[in-house]
Amino acid sequence: MRMVDLIENKKRGQALTNEEIDWMISGYVQGDIPDYQMSAMLMAICFQGMTEEETVHLTIAMRDSGDKVDLSAIPGIKVDKHSTGGVGDKTTLIVAPIVAACGGRVAKMSGRGLGHTGGTIDKLESIPGFQTALNRDEFFRVVKTAGLAVIGQTGNMVPADKKLYALRDVTATVDCIPLIASSIMSKKLAAGSDAILLDVKTGSGAFMKTPEQAEKLAELMVKIGHMAGRRTEAVITNMDIPLGHAVGNALEVREAIQVLRGEGPADLGEVCRTLASRMLVLGGCAEEENAREKVETAVQSGAALRALASMVREQGGDSSVITEPERLKIAPVAHELRSEQTGYLAHMDTEGIGLSSMLLGAGRSKKEDSLDYGAGIVLMKKTGEYVKEGEVLATLYTSDENKIPAACTRFLESLTYAPEELPPATLIYRLVK
Amino acid sequence: MRMVDLIENKKRGQALTNEEIDWMISGYVQGDIPDYQMSAMLMAICFQGMTEEETVHLTIAMRDSGDKVDLSAIPGIKVDKHSTGGVGDKTTLIVAPIVAACGGRVAKMSGRGLGHTGGTIDKLESIPGFQTALNRDEFFRVVKTAGLAVIGQTGNMVPADKKLYALRDVTATVDCIPLIASSIMSKKLAAGSDAILLDVKTGSGAFMKTPEQAEKLAELMVKIGHMAGRRTEAVITNMDIPLGHAVGNALEVREAIQVLRGEGPADLGEVCRTLASRMLVLGGCAEEENAREKVETAVQSGAALRALASMVREQGGDSSVITEPERLKIAPVAHELRSEQTGYLAHMDTEGIGLSSMLLGAGRSKKEDSLDYGAGIVLMKKTGEYVKEGEVLATLYTSDENKIPAACTRFLESLTYAPEELPPATLIYRLVK
Repeated sequence: MRMVDLIENKKRGQALTNEEIDWMISGYVQGDIPDYQMSAMLMAICFQGMTEEETVHLTIAMRDSGDKVDLSAIPGIKVDKHSTGGVGDKTTLIVAPIVAACGGRVAKMSGRGLGHTGGTIDKLESIPGFQTALNRDEFFRVVKTAGLAVIGQTGNMVPADKKLYALRDVTATVDCIPLIASSIMSKKLAAGSDAILLDVKTGSGAFMKTPEQAEKLAELMVKIGHMAGRRTEAVITNMDIPLGHAVGNALEVREAIQVLRGEGPADLGEVCRTLASRMLVLGGCAEEENAREKVETAVQSGAALRALASMVREQGGDSSVITEPERLKIAPVAHELRSEQTGYLAHMDTEGIGLSSMLLGAGRSKKEDSLDYGAGIVLMKKTGEYVKEGEVLATLYTSDENKIPAACTRFLESLTYAPEELPPATLIYRLVK
Repeated sequence: MRMVDLIENKKRGQALTNEEIDWMISGYVQGDIPDYQMSAMLMAICFQGMTEEETVHLTIAMRDSGDKVDLSAIPGIKVDKHSTGGVGDKTTLIVAPIVAACGGRVAKMSGRGLGHTGGTIDKLESIPGFQTALNRDEFFRVVKTAGLAVIGQTGNMVPADKKLYALRDVTATVDCIPLIASSIMSKKLAAGSDAILLDVKTGSGAFMKTPEQAEKLAELMVKIGHMAGRRTEAVITNMDIPLGHAVGNALEVREAIQVLRGEGPADLGEVCRTLASRMLVLGGCAEEENAREKVETAVQSGAALRALASMVREQGGDSSVITEPERLKIAPVAHELRSEQTGYLAHMDTEGIGLSSMLLGAGRSKKEDSLDYGAGIVLMKKTGEYVKEGEVLATLYTSDENKIPAACTRFLESLTYAPEELPPATLIYRLVK
């Protein structure tokens, strides 16, 4: 087999065989196939696509390229959740404790934020003492004790994805649905849960800018999950508006606690209740009919909040912040950003809001950047609301006041006003199963 | 400027600016832009194409990436000729002496053969003593004395093409018209002639399989030549049939001498007379009306043959082979390949004939292979002719009789018979100017 022939076939629109995909992925991981051939192949895939069969097989080959987690030592059905990434997306901090409180088991590996999107690991590390680098035994112990654990990726998992993603990032081959689907699903499959709920976000703050693109990606990933023998569903949700009011690590933990207390923003609460319900059904902890009710009970009884506190304690964190969230350290400089116009907020470019938060210190522009965990934004007004000139749009938090002007500019550039009221935005587009 | 952004723009179908092309080519030659980014760009170009303006600018940037030859020290108009490559294509050995005999100056750099195609340098090296590695002063002296010289590429000419071509070869990005055009024309422009005649071949033995593709390539290259200030024309000729009867280095030299004596195969004679006429017009040595007549006189008078002998002598070769071509060393094993069928020869897969000759030792499958200069094929029957079972189709020559069986098989696989006579093939499709 010669890589140049495989590239030629893909360039002409032919599908790669399973044997060709296996040979290509193992050769690439071993360094026998050079980057310059793989990048030509990736670009040909961007133009010619891949069949479902090719995409499923690529995902399996990538999954099998390194270590896999065997969660069978943990009793019960393990339910995983993956979000395609967004701004103010603290749903894991809310839904995982709800699922655990209802008897599900969530053994989750999560990532760090980059660019305008945040990462769950960063959010949890804003809790004093919280450890995200656990070994296998500690990880399993926390899941058994608290019902949930969230750690960073460990060991040599899916090296094919690490190498391919680094290459895609510098060769303009990131936005290609089969490559995105195989990247996400290879990691989810290697992480070993029995059931997987995918939160596919769409809109200005998401990688999939339209509901149609999101739907394609969701359907493909659900199909991959099924072919690999995992219970898999996807919920397509709106990321044209930041989720909730808080953007930034400690600020988002605080908002997650509010929701688990039965308070907090309605949009965030609604999305989390939907995601948690689907996870309960997937995990066999509830029927379609009573899933929503079980979620409600877990919140109202305080059981979900206690599950979060338990995980924080078991992972070495200061769990008193869960009962007393005012103890979370918010950055000292608070700047009230006021509207320069009057009108309805017609649109917030959510990526722009995420970048504004990054400029305050809450995110990274490069992987190596360190974080200001207390920095971020609390939105006072969101898309659809009426704003008068001089009213506070948002409060910006940072430890370095020099960062305020650029963040304000970036924030204001993200807003569009309209003279008349607009129809409310859809929060949840579709369930794909 | 970031290469990833340029790739993204090309992927989306945008044209690169002149500044972007300059930056990309110089960065690539200097090693600042890695192969894996360039191969992604090349694949995106294969799908999205390039505008004429982009292709012209790419050619100029490539031309300027290394040394250029300044031929102004040689008096008169220097006329170059380039063939896109074929089987049995010994036209340079015929047309360059004709042009020199008519007062034109041909200072030509040529290449070696690879795969099914031969190279002029290899053919000339089958003449005992002939030197193709001359320095600049010797090269100029031979052109001034004999009117023509043919040498191998010297110095650091067009390093961008060397690097890009090596990358295209292993990333399935060779067959892309703007990339082919810029590769050929960057070398022709760097070689310094005032006028360029392009022989664009089409058919089963050529890289352009259809006349339409050949026409596109020809028009683009002529446009590039004009934009770069060179007199440029292209002739689109048939390579669906091997040109003449001889394939192989010494065999082709022998056939070229026949044509210069006014003998030899009619198809080869006709193509050479057309090419030589156009070169005379381009070089200002003849008018449209009398070019053909001048060519005829140069052949009939023996002036063209004397010009070839003069070049051979000046480049250190044994010029007695020109007057006594029976002194050319032909390989000792001669095998008469007989037809196993009766009928009209409907088609010869010319690439297959070239590969058969390669198997006899006349060509290279890898760059490092050494040549059996006396090996090759003399065709007794060509497309359109009637053949009886048992009649000789061709004589195969080699120094190693073990090579005969595979070469015979490859040859016979290339033939298609038909029960009825077919219309004669077009020899010359079009002139593009």
